[in-house]
Amino acid sequence: MNFSDCFPIYDKLTSQQQQLLSQAVVLRSVKKDTLLRGSGSDCLGLLVIRSGQLRAYITSDQGREVTIYRLFPQDICLMSASCILHDLQFEISIAAEKDTQFWIIPPNIYQNLMENCTTVANYTNQIMATRLTDVMWLIEQVMWKRFDHRLAHFLLEESALESSLELHLTHEKIASHTGTAREVVTRMLKHFQSEGAVKLTRGTITLLDLQKLRALSQ
Amino acid sequence: MNFSDCFPIYDKLTSQQQQLLSQAVVLRSVKKDTLLRGSGSDCLGLLVIRSGQLRAYITSDQGREVTIYRLFPQDICLMSASCILHDLQFEISIAAEKDTQFWIIPPNIYQNLMENCTTVANYTNQIMATRLTDVMWLIEQVMWKRFDHRLAHFLLEESALESSLELHLTHEKIASHTGTAREVVTRMLKHFQSEGAVKLTRGTITLLDLQKLRALSQ
Repeated sequence: MNFSDCFPIYDKLTSQQQQLLSQAVVLRSVKKDTLLRGSGSDCLGLLVIRSGQLRAYITSDQGREVTIYRLFPQDICLMSASCILHDLQFEISIAAEKDTQFWIIPPNIYQNLMENCTTVANYTNQIMATRLTDVMWLIEQVMWKRFDHRLAHFLLEESALESSLELHLTHEKIASHTGTAREVVTRMLKHFQSEGAVKLTRGTITLLDLQKLRALSQ
Repeated sequence: MNFSDCFPIYDKLTSQQQQLLSQAVVLRSVKKDTLLRGSGSDCLGLLVIRSGQLRAYITSDQGREVTIYRLFPQDICLMSASCILHDLQFEISIAAEKDTQFWIIPPNIYQNLMENCTTVANYTNQIMATRLTDVMWLIEQVMWKRFDHRLAHFLLEESALESSLELHLTHEKIASHTGTAREVVTRMLKHFQSEGAVKLTRGTITLLDLQKLRALSQ
């Protein structure tokens, strides 16, 4: 896959803009678990995912985490370019959840395009609206969903992402995704096990009853 | 105050665009407590606040509410124009917290400007980034702040908005702003009273010790 395949509005740009972008982007490969951006760190630029999976999350003063959204191939990460979107004033960390390849669009290049081209400006708008929708969804979950519902949803989502019913996930990791204490995760997983929805073995959670989990997650 | 004073990028538009906008906007006045948009309702257009105060909030299936952000004079409400920002896919309600005057920019007019003018497109971006920042702040509060801290913050904010130490607020209303059960609000306010931070009388909360509340809210 080339950059032009992964950047959704590439075809709508002028050939001059296409050339500018193609020459400026840098392809980078990172291993699973690489931290691309800690909270408060420098402006990386925009990331265009070629393969793999990134996770954007926030961290509390006490070191607890919660996943805000995930990025998949052909997704664009705007939050890593907070220097050109000055009104994005929050600290977000970005890490690779799998071995990941992405292109970096340098901030000044993107800013220039955004200021001179309505297609790019409105596309940026569209990405921002999608992220805002993700975050609103998370607020609803956190405010109003019981933890058993959220955990069932998370397990099903993980299973879909990994295309497997066997999830190699520690309780600590689930706690970091859902913003919950590890003890709460362990207690709820044991409850799910007693209901026959999952089977717990060392380092692995096997989903047994998808129908039950789906009913719970809704 | 005219529309041109309240719409921050008015001076950056061409005279043709200025004329188009000025002719299209409609000034509307609503009384306190008017519901401008229930969740899932029609596309109003963009609102440009002239005076008063609006509240954007979400509602759970059980009818609980939480305030997402507030809009003050010269603020722009984008969420009421979800028909032109298709990627904003969440239900938000908007109500007047005070008698309010605002201009409505019809959706088709704004869309046209956004598609043809980078200034408008990037300004929309900027508003969206500000809202995203508001929502991220709320997530951090809800996930990680103890309720006493959030309540202290809310009382101080209300006091600043009303320019008064006497707040005419029911516990029910505070519950709707903070997304908490009324009983929890009552219990915490009684605790604040026992600490000498507030005084509770029928329908009124008087802030007595701002320093203590400020320390709590941080």
